[in-house]
Amino acid sequence: MSISKANRLSLVEQVVSQIETLIESGEWEIGSQIPPEMDLIKQFDVSRNTLREAIRSLVYAGLLITQQGKGTFVKSASALGAAFQRRIQRSSLFETLEVRHALERQGAQLAAARRDQEDIEKLRLHITACSKAAEAKDLKAYEEADIQLHKTIMASSHNGLLIDLYEHMEDSLHDSIHQIAGMSPDANLHLSIHCNLVEAIIDQDVERAIDSVNGYIAHFKKFID
Amino acid sequence: MSISKANRLSLVEQVVSQIETLIESGEWEIGSQIPPEMDLIKQFDVSRNTLREAIRSLVYAGLLITQQGKGTFVKSASALGAAFQRRIQRSSLFETLEVRHALERQGAQLAAARRDQEDIEKLRLHITACSKAAEAKDLKAYEEADIQLHKTIMASSHNGLLIDLYEHMEDSLHDSIHQIAGMSPDANLHLSIHCNLVEAIIDQDVERAIDSVNGYIAHFKKFID
Repeated sequence: MSISKANRLSLVEQVVSQIETLIESGEWEIGSQIPPEMDLIKQFDVSRNTLREAIRSLVYAGLLITQQGKGTFVKSASALGAAFQRRIQRSSLFETLEVRHALERQGAQLAAARRDQEDIEKLRLHITACSKAAEAKDLKAYEEADIQLHKTIMASSHNGLLIDLYEHMEDSLHDSIHQIAGMSPDANLHLSIHCNLVEAIIDQDVERAIDSVNGYIAHFKKFID
Repeated sequence: MSISKANRLSLVEQVVSQIETLIESGEWEIGSQIPPEMDLIKQFDVSRNTLREAIRSLVYAGLLITQQGKGTFVKSASALGAAFQRRIQRSSLFETLEVRHALERQGAQLAAARRDQEDIEKLRLHITACSKAAEAKDLKAYEEADIQLHKTIMASSHNGLLIDLYEHMEDSLHDSIHQIAGMSPDANLHLSIHCNLVEAIIDQDVERAIDSVNGYIAHFKKFID
């Protein structure tokens, strides 16, 4: 009896793990509907109950979401990301900004110490995109370029744990940038601080990189204080 | 048909949420075995299948752990904590230390700005415990006092999101302090930097608080470089 229970548990876990891999690899895209139940039963060669338990677990962990009458959709790429986002939803914009500050200051400091030639090229690409969007007064393009720039700075830190944590803040980060951009009347000041930060990282000037992050966070805080 | 499915889904979710509350409130302690299945079926007034699905979901999310032949135990107090710990397990000590640096620097900076009278009393209590343990050369007591001190500094930041993230690093933090303490030959230097940090926070000296954190992290890094 206990053996068949153990086998059943491990079957559910195997299906959960296979679906996680499909989501992490991007084969199941975020926002897309998952394949029909019958197809999945065939694909994983499991019973309907086992499949449903696996889906239920993934819904609970926040990777999938079931919309009544519509079906089940991919919501997040990892359990850490989903749990982090649920926690951030209960936080104020001010609290989230202070955690961003912690991660971005460390990211900038490590990036200034460790950026390689490939990082430098990407940083130049994204800061140029920011400048062009600001010149064209295209707020949507500016926000998108700004997010890509922040992710590239973080990637230049070459610390996988820091990169992952920051990646998982991305959705809420997008929201906070959107909210703050709407409040800030001075896109050019925002751009000039970011240009300064990118130059500091390229020049391996750790202190100036830290000062730049402190500068734009202080600038943001004025608008939400 | 779809209504009964919806009801069943929400029943599982209700049981999951009730168990989460029992764990978060500490009524179900970390490390303890959960009550027998029959008791829970009565307590939540649900079917065996519903209960099992709820437990399965909580096992998958990392809050509970099932040990074959022994039963099910409480493993972690939150989904974020469990997911964070799983991710940290895949990280190097060096990566984890750099994320600690990010959170502790921000914690110290905000604590220096925001600590109140109650925080000051707790800080004095825990730094005194550190000193006494160092004097008695009691490494285990020193580690425990050190963790309580770091948690109190973080609590003095009065940023709930930062406190939560740090709380969830605690297990791995305990490991890293243990590993580093074993490597560091100079407990007195460690203690003096921490005394300096506590004084800076009490004096509301933000720059000195940041410098102290940078100091002890740099000191740690020498031992794992």
